[in-house]
Amino acid sequence: MSTPCYAELTRAYTRLYRYQHIGAIVGWDRNAMMPPKGNEARAAAEAELSALIHRTRTDPRLKQWIDAAEQEPLDELARANLREIRRDWRDANALPESLVEAKTLAGARCEHAWRSQRPANDWKGFLENFRPVVKLAREEARLLSDSTGLAPYDALMDRFEPGVRAADIDRIFGDVRQWLPGLVAGAQARQSAEKIILPQGPFPVAAQRALNREVMGLLGFDFEAGRLDESAHPFSGGVPEDVRLTTRYHEDDFARSLLGTIHETGHARYEQNLPRDWLGQPVGSARSYGIHESQSLSFEMQLARSRPFAGLLAPLLRKHFGDQPAFDPDNLNRLWTRVKPGFIRVDADEVTYPAHVILRYEIERPLVEGLIEAEDIPALWDERMQALLGLDTRGNYGDGCLQDVHWTEGAFGYFPSYTLGAMYAAQWFAVIRRQVPDLDARIGRGELAPVFDWLRANVWSQGCLWDTPELVRRASGEALNPQHFRSHLERRYLQA
Amino acid sequence: MSTPCYAELTRAYTRLYRYQHIGAIVGWDRNAMMPPKGNEARAAAEAELSALIHRTRTDPRLKQWIDAAEQEPLDELARANLREIRRDWRDANALPESLVEAKTLAGARCEHAWRSQRPANDWKGFLENFRPVVKLAREEARLLSDSTGLAPYDALMDRFEPGVRAADIDRIFGDVRQWLPGLVAGAQARQSAEKIILPQGPFPVAAQRALNREVMGLLGFDFEAGRLDESAHPFSGGVPEDVRLTTRYHEDDFARSLLGTIHETGHARYEQNLPRDWLGQPVGSARSYGIHESQSLSFEMQLARSRPFAGLLAPLLRKHFGDQPAFDPDNLNRLWTRVKPGFIRVDADEVTYPAHVILRYEIERPLVEGLIEAEDIPALWDERMQALLGLDTRGNYGDGCLQDVHWTEGAFGYFPSYTLGAMYAAQWFAVIRRQVPDLDARIGRGELAPVFDWLRANVWSQGCLWDTPELVRRASGEALNPQHFRSHLERRYLQA
Repeated sequence: MSTPCYAELTRAYTRLYRYQHIGAIVGWDRNAMMPPKGNEARAAAEAELSALIHRTRTDPRLKQWIDAAEQEPLDELARANLREIRRDWRDANALPESLVEAKTLAGARCEHAWRSQRPANDWKGFLENFRPVVKLAREEARLLSDSTGLAPYDALMDRFEPGVRAADIDRIFGDVRQWLPGLVAGAQARQSAEKIILPQGPFPVAAQRALNREVMGLLGFDFEAGRLDESAHPFSGGVPEDVRLTTRYHEDDFARSLLGTIHETGHARYEQNLPRDWLGQPVGSARSYGIHESQSLSFEMQLARSRPFAGLLAPLLRKHFGDQPAFDPDNLNRLWTRVKPGFIRVDADEVTYPAHVILRYEIERPLVEGLIEAEDIPALWDERMQALLGLDTRGNYGDGCLQDVHWTEGAFGYFPSYTLGAMYAAQWFAVIRRQVPDLDARIGRGELAPVFDWLRANVWSQGCLWDTPELVRRASGEALNPQHFRSHLERRYLQA
Repeated sequence: MSTPCYAELTRAYTRLYRYQHIGAIVGWDRNAMMPPKGNEARAAAEAELSALIHRTRTDPRLKQWIDAAEQEPLDELARANLREIRRDWRDANALPESLVEAKTLAGARCEHAWRSQRPANDWKGFLENFRPVVKLAREEARLLSDSTGLAPYDALMDRFEPGVRAADIDRIFGDVRQWLPGLVAGAQARQSAEKIILPQGPFPVAAQRALNREVMGLLGFDFEAGRLDESAHPFSGGVPEDVRLTTRYHEDDFARSLLGTIHETGHARYEQNLPRDWLGQPVGSARSYGIHESQSLSFEMQLARSRPFAGLLAPLLRKHFGDQPAFDPDNLNRLWTRVKPGFIRVDADEVTYPAHVILRYEIERPLVEGLIEAEDIPALWDERMQALLGLDTRGNYGDGCLQDVHWTEGAFGYFPSYTLGAMYAAQWFAVIRRQVPDLDARIGRGELAPVFDWLRANVWSQGCLWDTPELVRRASGEALNPQHFRSHLERRYLQA
């Protein structure tokens, strides 16, 4: 087979992969290691690298090679890779540099001011910086729409969740909207009589560190191919060959770091188990934000917050912190499945979380489409929070529509991925439970291989071979079906 | 002033500086942080970055800009920068890529095999890989000689010590050769009656870490602009804005890590105090390997191994390790100034160290010049070790001519920098002592500012404004004068 243009493309993308590797490591270093006075020179160095990566992705020869490679005799894998290369090329080339720069600038200005406007509850001040961000995001959506043939909001979302459309989200979130308030109420009613013993700190950082590492080991994290360190904002970074997780310790609360680390370990195992032979090419990378979140939530929600897993953790807590009544597995499980509607998305429990996402989707989509304006957000926010969670947010912008960083930087189309991730995870576990009827008993004995084997075969090893809907169909035999998420919540919160 | 070509050059070198920043951080990460399975992908990523840096330094436009900038109206600083840019350009462009690749390959093969040949004492096996390295180094020296107009060995050395010639080294080392054996014998005779109490371990790693950090603080290391971590082979890396030191701990011996860290702190302070306004341009970087070593040896030899500094360290040792008789300052000072001729350069004391360097210089120079062949090395080595240190090394290649990594990789012309560094340091302190007659008393009180202020004004702040001989003249009022080194050794080892 003669595929000279495809070969040129793979060489170009291998080079790009290596530049991105370097960028990922210095990015991790900036967050986890760099002393404060290193910041200015580092910012300049990272910007230079970003410019280089941008030049590499917009090299005019790429387009010729992509078009010519379409005519070359490629096998299925190469064809999938070419499809992902075209996607990457489109993402990098759809927008004129002037727009990218203007949006970066407006976003940075809005985000910077937001840091003090949020605590000051200053919606009016925020609005002034936010309007230009919205304007530029609409322009971005229009241009992406032109280059993809998708509707504007779909074009934004497609960068995060390839193949998923607003019509799908409408169907799925419309379904959730129906049963979620009832489920929240039901869970709260059931839990109102529960007695919970709170863990008593302090929990020394060194002991938490050792606990986290041991639990990561239990979850199969490969410490020969990754690290756990500390940073102000925990994240999963690095490269598939060398995954860098971070966490943050609070001496009065071990669970926040532990559950956060378990969450990041889900992201990490996906990266560590991507198809080794394809690494360096787009087809060898993780599928999407939603699929990535399905891994972190498989680990955190499906595994770690289950009763059997609490039974695994209890002896480890006793080992690292000494014994105390709160470490009873039933108590731990009750503690980690507590349902309580609240203002803040990132503090939300598993059951109320989707309400926060649905609310944002129902605001950001018409905002991007020009059906509402930035000024209309607070009223809509109040109305939906009342309807979905029964909370009054009027006048409380800081704990309301000013709480997230995403919109300040003009990142619209991202929020749905969080709840899609929770739903994919529930759907994966529905399949695993069908195939392994005694799954809970096995988890309780520490036999996690059935879960990891299934995820490896159906998600990790698949890279970007398929778009998201096709990956879901191949893995679970059906399209994304919110019924699995509902059943999971009902079993855990209404029937357990 | 219209200086368009000079402006182009400064832009190109700013970009290069940023790429090198990125390379320095990932290089530090590889040595201090990277888990083992990250190695393969990292090697590929770093090679890609090296190729990018090489392309940047060999961009054909640079030569035109350099030549044109010579005709532009530049101030003194810009003219010095242009001189350094030309030097960098010449270094990067003097050698054809085929030679660079062949030398890298031959060096890597020789170095890799050497790792097992040294412990096996296998000189014959080594010779086979070493011959091609020598051949390529001669070719390199010839080409560098053509492009610089210097003699071949001078051209090699000029990359490490700009402006210093073999004729200077002959004069200096010829002088040292005269008095060194007598000084070694004298010091040993004096010390033969000394009683030394050895410190009793173990010294826990956490306590050593805390001690090292405290001593670095005492020496003015800025922890807001740098870090101390651990690696198998300690080094000073990172960038001037963010210096990364490493050390290695041995629980039975705190002094190795402590004195090593003090040594690296000298390198670090030079970097942290380079002229901030010029950073990003070649004129803003450290002058040379020898001048760099003069800073680490100012800290380690001139300061740390002096009697007054032992008085500063003693209470810190007691604080971190508890008290013991060995921590008496006189005892510490005796321990750290012990003279004992030995086979191994890196284990050598301050007095015998120059002998190791002179020996290597007297072999590598005629080797590069084609006056001797690789086969002749062992006999020469034996003869010089006998003459300089009175040691019999016959047949012991592993502890003889196979002990260093430098030659395996074809790095000829580097060794003199070590002893030049020791001599510059002695010369700096001779000036400081003239200006601050009560220097020892001040050091004993922890007043180190006179030393740091002098080094800042005369070395750190000068960057690459002058070549090495001119820097030395400006700082000390005379050319490098080995008499200062001799006086320092005589005062410390024969008169103290």
